[in-house]
Amino acid sequence: MTDSKHGLTITEVRLTPILVADPPLLNTQGVHQPYTPRLIIELITEGGATGLGETYGDTKYLDLARPLAAALIGRSVTDLNGLPALAAEVCGDSPAATGADAVDVGGLRGVQTADKLRLSVLSGFEVACLDAWGRATGLPVHALLGGKVRDRVEYSAYLFYRWAEHPGGRGERDDWGAALDPAGVVAQARRFADTYGFTSFKLKGGVFEPAQEVAAVKALAAAFPGQPLRLDPNGAWTVATSLTVADQLRGVLEYLEDPASGTDRMAEVAAATPLPLATNMCVTTFDEIAGAFTRGAVQVVLCDHHYWGGLRNTRELAAVCRTFGVGLSMHSNTHLGISLAAMTQVAATVPHLDHACDSHYPWQTEDVLTERLTFRDGGLDVGDAPGLGVELDHERLATLHRRWLADDGSHRDRDDAAAMRLADPHWTAPTVPRW
Amino acid sequence: MTDSKHGLTITEVRLTPILVADPPLLNTQGVHQPYTPRLIIELITEGGATGLGETYGDTKYLDLARPLAAALIGRSVTDLNGLPALAAEVCGDSPAATGADAVDVGGLRGVQTADKLRLSVLSGFEVACLDAWGRATGLPVHALLGGKVRDRVEYSAYLFYRWAEHPGGRGERDDWGAALDPAGVVAQARRFADTYGFTSFKLKGGVFEPAQEVAAVKALAAAFPGQPLRLDPNGAWTVATSLTVADQLRGVLEYLEDPASGTDRMAEVAAATPLPLATNMCVTTFDEIAGAFTRGAVQVVLCDHHYWGGLRNTRELAAVCRTFGVGLSMHSNTHLGISLAAMTQVAATVPHLDHACDSHYPWQTEDVLTERLTFRDGGLDVGDAPGLGVELDHERLATLHRRWLADDGSHRDRDDAAAMRLADPHWTAPTVPRW
Ligand SMILES: [Mg+2]
Ligand SMILES: [Mg+2]
Repeated sequence: MTDSKHGLTITEVRLTPILVADPPLLNTQGVHQPYTPRLIIELITEGGATGLGETYGDTKYLDLARPLAAALIGRSVTDLNGLPALAAEVCGDSPAATGADAVDVGGLRGVQTADKLRLSVLSGFEVACLDAWGRATGLPVHALLGGKVRDRVEYSAYLFYRWAEHPGGRGERDDWGAALDPAGVVAQARRFADTYGFTSFKLKGGVFEPAQEVAAVKALAAAFPGQPLRLDPNGAWTVATSLTVADQLRGVLEYLEDPASGTDRMAEVAAATPLPLATNMCVTTFDEIAGAFTRGAVQVVLCDHHYWGGLRNTRELAAVCRTFGVGLSMHSNTHLGISLAAMTQVAATVPHLDHACDSHYPWQTEDVLTERLTFRDGGLDVGDAPGLGVELDHERLATLHRRWLADDGSHRDRDDAAAMRLADPHWTAPTVPRW
Repeated sequence: MTDSKHGLTITEVRLTPILVADPPLLNTQGVHQPYTPRLIIELITEGGATGLGETYGDTKYLDLARPLAAALIGRSVTDLNGLPALAAEVCGDSPAATGADAVDVGGLRGVQTADKLRLSVLSGFEVACLDAWGRATGLPVHALLGGKVRDRVEYSAYLFYRWAEHPGGRGERDDWGAALDPAGVVAQARRFADTYGFTSFKLKGGVFEPAQEVAAVKALAAAFPGQPLRLDPNGAWTVATSLTVADQLRGVLEYLEDPASGTDRMAEVAAATPLPLATNMCVTTFDEIAGAFTRGAVQVVLCDHHYWGGLRNTRELAAVCRTFGVGLSMHSNTHLGISLAAMTQVAATVPHLDHACDSHYPWQTEDVLTERLTFRDGGLDVGDAPGLGVELDHERLATLHRRWLADDGSHRDRDDAAAMRLADPHWTAPTVPRW
């Protein structure tokens, strides 16, 4: 639908790839690089409203974003149901979308299909459309999604094993220091709790052998008695190891996230433990749901509007989960404030999102907003400002874009294994199961 | 969210129960009464926009609509996600909602739970909110649902066995005459095709013994070769009868609708025939989906925004169906133009709604609109007028309301078996399976 009479027609779309500082956070595939690519989308309507969106910035996403941006000119920001067909039409299948067997970023983002790549790109445009629509009509994005059902969204502290600095002192520094053992993890958690009031804690695991990570979780349980805890080894374990850990952490964990890789193994684990299993790896597309749900492979899905194609698809995922009695939580990759605002808007609208959401945001020292979002008492308030309620800092955006322009190519595509090789030249991303 | 600054706050809600003329259409439970109750909802915002909604008008629905109408005052028309909780809070459990074992209108509307009754009432208010929101902002309802993906919605001709007139000449007359055999059904279909251009045909069955209805369908197939045909006995058959009919009508029917009652029987039938089974009886709530889908009991769900709690829930149902590879079509009870407009708006937004929708509307000689909707070439165009794009005729509304006021109570609650007893004093609604 074109909608010139309401000024909701899109007249311009600006795409700005940037590189954002990222600390040396460890996972089973390697370590975060000093800079990670993101794509910032600005969409301008005939009526003068601007909408902001943010998504992955790796080359394969940019390659799809460019034709989609061009195709949006002349369409209405309200025309969202038509986006998937439009994306399929104008993007085609990127050479990077090599079929259902491929995985993205060493498997950390789950399966990589042509559909999912397009949806990940599309998600940034969908958010930008909603932001512009909200700004044009004075409504917050949550109202465009049917209204908030809560005034605050709870987030969890996202704990990482990490080094004090990147190999060779590359990149930006922060003052968090290293966290490589239970005491380090607890200290990190304490700082998160003191600074932001988080009361739920998630540890990214799969880094050390399982007994060490179990010890870290038990140390957290001792330090924060009764508070929700999670452990996520990104599918690094065998079924047997998963069950051993599940047994050791029964009554300690709120849920165990992706202990094993793939629906088959997850279903095996789930059948043998009462501990709920969560995933953002074996269920990351609508195509994967039926197989996993009918087999009881997962009890909680971690939604991510980037994976799923936007805020409205996230609500549809929520409806599917609710219908099948599967819980809902929220996943996060490295992201900035535009995505955090979007995550918060949609989370506010989903009745049964009854776990605290994950967010990497506290690790990001850089942003493209005039004013950073600040977690208080472990969450974010859901305001009624128009759109997403955030403003772009064009200076900051330009600075981070210049970093992307100046990059020799080594950071334009996230590669945690390559980053690890700078510390350990013989490192190759381990095949799973690793333990 | 209250939203006074945009004028979207609800300041008034008018409920008008009416009685609408209905022809003597036969089904397995009995016959339509000469008048059927509907509830018309007018919702007025601070900014002066009016939103229209329509739902069932039986007493048990009215009893829930009144407290919900009162509770809406002061809320924003955009605050839709909060409606179920609000309804649960203010409506409580109606005495008529007697739990999951009860069925509504002799089972024709499927299970009757407290939740479903509330959702059926709520659906009328949700539509009215969307209409008002659209009118206030100049956007069609489909845009508020994310935009249309088609410019036309196809409808099927809804064929009924029927008498020429109601018992004792009660009610209003029409010129359709009787249809009680294959020739009568084909003649009815021919008139529908000639008048409205319908190319799909659905026969309401369960009225005569199955061989007679099979003969009618075969007569339709001969008269309209290659065109989609459906048969719906409303669960009147045993599994064995269902399979016999399925075998006789393989390659003739597009789908067989509710041959047997309940998920168990439907699953048995589905397992033994390649003919797709459709339902608006064993899957009418989100709670019934998991059991039916995991057992492959149905291949097509007939959505109905009244049952499911509104247009947005209908879209969520569509997402669940799409995710599980289950087809989607649309169900209809007796309804007027407000509901037809709402059905058309939501149908326009659902990509995989790939069967023609059902509608009783051509049977309704009365309406509350200034201008009736008119099927052309078997469908309705989806316009871009604000809201639902229809206008209320207050005179007509008042007239039909006066009929409701004057009624001695015999038509205020739909009872097809009671209507049948006027022709056959010994009639009791048959228990299913009937054949
Ligand atoms: Mg994870
Ligand atoms: Mg039916």
